[in-house]
Amino acid sequence: MQLVTFKDSAGERIGALLRASNEIVDLAAAAPGLPRDMQGFIAAGPAALATAQAALAAGRRIPLASVKLLAPMPRPAKNVFCVGKNYHEHAREFHGSGFDASAKEAIPELPIIFTKAPTSIIAQGETILASLDYTGSTDYEGELTVVIGKGGRGIAKADAYQHVFGYTIINDVTARTLQHSHRQWFLGKSLDTFCPMGPAIVTADEVGDVTKLRLVTRVNGETRQDALVSDLIFDIPTLIETMSKAMTLQPGDLIATGTCAGVGIGFKPPKYLKPGDRVAVTIEPMGTLENLVG
Amino acid sequence: MQLVTFKDSAGERIGALLRASNEIVDLAAAAPGLPRDMQGFIAAGPAALATAQAALAAGRRIPLASVKLLAPMPRPAKNVFCVGKNYHEHAREFHGSGFDASAKEAIPELPIIFTKAPTSIIAQGETILASLDYTGSTDYEGELTVVIGKGGRGIAKADAYQHVFGYTIINDVTARTLQHSHRQWFLGKSLDTFCPMGPAIVTADEVGDVTKLRLVTRVNGETRQDALVSDLIFDIPTLIETMSKAMTLQPGDLIATGTCAGVGIGFKPPKYLKPGDRVAVTIEPMGTLENLVG
Repeated sequence: MQLVTFKDSAGERIGALLRASNEIVDLAAAAPGLPRDMQGFIAAGPAALATAQAALAAGRRIPLASVKLLAPMPRPAKNVFCVGKNYHEHAREFHGSGFDASAKEAIPELPIIFTKAPTSIIAQGETILASLDYTGSTDYEGELTVVIGKGGRGIAKADAYQHVFGYTIINDVTARTLQHSHRQWFLGKSLDTFCPMGPAIVTADEVGDVTKLRLVTRVNGETRQDALVSDLIFDIPTLIETMSKAMTLQPGDLIATGTCAGVGIGFKPPKYLKPGDRVAVTIEPMGTLENLVG
Repeated sequence: MQLVTFKDSAGERIGALLRASNEIVDLAAAAPGLPRDMQGFIAAGPAALATAQAALAAGRRIPLASVKLLAPMPRPAKNVFCVGKNYHEHAREFHGSGFDASAKEAIPELPIIFTKAPTSIIAQGETILASLDYTGSTDYEGELTVVIGKGGRGIAKADAYQHVFGYTIINDVTARTLQHSHRQWFLGKSLDTFCPMGPAIVTADEVGDVTKLRLVTRVNGETRQDALVSDLIFDIPTLIETMSKAMTLQPGDLIATGTCAGVGIGFKPPKYLKPGDRVAVTIEPMGTLENLVG
């Protein structure tokens, strides 16, 4: 199932996206007992998902064009977890750019985990305000993002996929100069509008083998990033094992798994985002996350 | 006013702590219209605070010993924001320890901002599980913590204190080896139980001139940290201006302002926390945040 959060005159709620017909099944109407927000729906576990699935066929359909699509998790209960330098070619590209204040080595020995503030989240189609980056060094980073279903601590690699609810796309937009000059990356990653997310969360069963997915980022139609998820340095089970060794993961936690080669600072001179640009990150079956830069 | 979050058979809610008599005024009973949780109460603004103040004298008092004290914000809506290397002597001590993977320089040119996961928060009196740190390098960091009242973006230094609701204490417990080996600090700072907070949030009017406050951390009664808040490299107005230049601050946001010299890795050999230790961070008028290590 492809799950979205949307808003119309009847309020904000979740729905199932039917991409073939550009419609949304209103899950609040189809199964009134279900939580109306994504966080609550994910926390309600497999039973809620099964209820939604069963209600799908007979549910009321709303044209996508008649609603406002929000980020699938517009207000997660904590920061978005992100992984740095998690594709070999990008790790070398970032290391060589001079913007990496965090380490002497290009390829990390352990996953580099940082976070983005929830206030940075915007939806598919909303505008990335590069104008907020007073250092003029706004860059894109297309990323496959894991949505945790069942929480836990001490999750072994072998069990990790059982804890994945589904996947979405995040553009980990970054103010490079702030990322570098503040040493820790949080602030340069957390400017308002710097976390486009969506359009949908696709459940794990519909994604199948996630390592087969391909990530493509285009700026104004020009392909900048193109990689396979199988090229991750630390794969999804390793990330879940490493993080949950230290801390409890909870339903609805988001883990952006890192970006691949081809970011703006990989070019000489750097190709920063500027007002009027269009950035589109495509990972099928999640679709395309496209945002205008303002 | 000294605000706490507590729980008894009637549920979880906020109260006003009367330290002289070791009692709590049950604000939910005294002023039933008020939000029962700290996040909601702070978001409700000055009117809610005035209502609570007015209800205080006639409110029902509960002996502190008869309730379970929780962290004043047990589940903030996002990660706890923290500032690294924000006292000169500590910045040099940390830099000299070999655990600082983030920078070549000892004294930062700009504030270093990172976050702790909300799942790491525990209350006054609860146990820091050093046993979860499989690297055996658990360290304490006593910190004055700002609680944001009125949110905003682009807050100027001169207006910053108008956005402060109050102050609390955080012990920014850290797994030093994880902080170093994962490069970005988030994971080594976010182990479950590694964010003791409390006992109370003291409102800004009751704190007065925050730069006059003194921070003392004791381990098993031995003084380890002792500094004045006036020694901060980046003071509170600078932190609020710097952060809000990039991102919107919201009511209830927490900013732990950094720790001073005297952490465990400042000693040779390092004095790590071990099971059975008692760590107590004192900043009056917020009181003492004391936790056992397990």
